[in-house]
Formats: sequence, C-alpha cells, structure tokens
Amino acid sequence: MTTVLPLLDAPGAACCAPLVREPISADDAVDLAHTIKALADPTRLRLLSIVAASEGQEACVCDLTEPVGLSQPTVSHHLKILTDAGFLTRSKRGTWAYFALVPGALERVALVLTP
Amino acid sequence: MTTVLPLLDAPGAACCAPLVREPISADDAVDLAHTIKALADPTRLRLLSIVAASEGQEACVCDLTEPVGLSQPTVSHHLKILTDAGFLTRSKRGTWAYFALVPGALERVALVLTP
Repeated sequence: MTTVLPLLDAPGAACCAPLVREPISADDAVDLAHTIKALADPTRLRLLSIVAASEGQEACVCDLTEPVGLSQPTVSHHLKILTDAGFLTRSKRGTWAYFALVPGALERVALVLTP
Repeated sequence: MTTVLPLLDAPGAACCAPLVREPISADDAVDLAHTIKALADPTRLRLLSIVAASEGQEACVCDLTEPVGLSQPTVSHHLKILTDAGFLTRSKRGTWAYFALVPGALERVALVLTP
C-alpha cells in the first residue's frame, strides 16, 4: 500500500501553487504565512543573507553576532526560527553551532509568489 | 539639478539584490522585512490570492468578506495593509471599494528571494 504523505509537513516547504493562479486554501495559507513570517524580520533577513553569502553558504554562530550587533542569545533565537522554518540547518562542531542555508528553501517561497 | 529619489520610497518596492548574493544592508533589511510582513498572515495571503485570481485581477471588497469568513472592517484592515505595502491598489466606485493587484509587486519580492 502506498501512503501519500502531505508535502506540507516538510519543514519550510512553501506549499501551494502560485498565489495568483488560484485562491489559496485556508490551510495552505496558514502554512505559507508561518514560513513567510520567519522572513519578516530585519535581523533574520540579515542573518540569512550573511549565511548565504558565506563560503559554502555556512557560518559559525560565533561569526554572526558582530555583523548584526546583537547578543549571542538573541542571534541564536533568530537562527532557531529560521531553522524551524526550514531555511537553515544547524550542526554542532566542537564548541560552536554552524548554520547552513537549505538549498531551494528560499526559491520555493519565491515560486509561490511568482505568477 | 537632478534629484535622485531613493527607490525604497516606492511603495512595495522590494529593494535589494538577491538575498543570497551579498549580505543585505541594515536599512534594506528593514524595508524588505516590512514588505514581507504584509504577506506573513493567512488572511492577507488568501485575500491577495482571491483578488489575483479574479477577473482582471480586481475584486470588490463586498465579494471578499464571505470567502474568508470575516467581518468587513477586519477584511478592510487587512486590505489596507496590503495596499500600504504596495501589493494592491484601491479605487472607489459608487458605494464600494475595489482592490486590484499591482503588476510586478509580488515578483519583486520573489526576485529578492531567488539566487
């Protein structure tokens, strides 16, 4: 028997057909809004952008506090939101956590916004 | 004398080079987060989607309350946020306000999210 798993359970999956093609369902709108909300913050946009522009699209949390001028707990809080929304992955090496861009995650949101 | 007007003042202009290409500036991040925040709500995504899928990508506010199951003041509040962010334009005809999709506004956000 084949079980069809809902795609929406994939973290950060921007669900849905393009917004302008057909009215989005109430459930899909809740999921998509949750994903987009992770991007709707200046600090998170900066962190995502810095990670994405880093070598290998990965950065140590220790290198992210200074550029945004915030404490490490605050930066870690924002990184957790981006990770939970599926835009970043987190891996621990030695003392530090490293965050890497999830390939395709931003593009999936972009595709929903593109006609 | 030529005055250079900042593009960021254009409503809903998603500023900025693609996020993943170079670190976004603090100012651009504030503007972009503000624009994205208008999309980070399930009701607003549904309203935008319904308007976009309507004939001529325009809809009367009188036809938008029933599909989302909310009162007209609440719907008007959400439509105002989308209009202020540059995703919709508002025009009054007779008793009713009509909202139309701004061509290119969603695509500009999509382009910033695309590598």
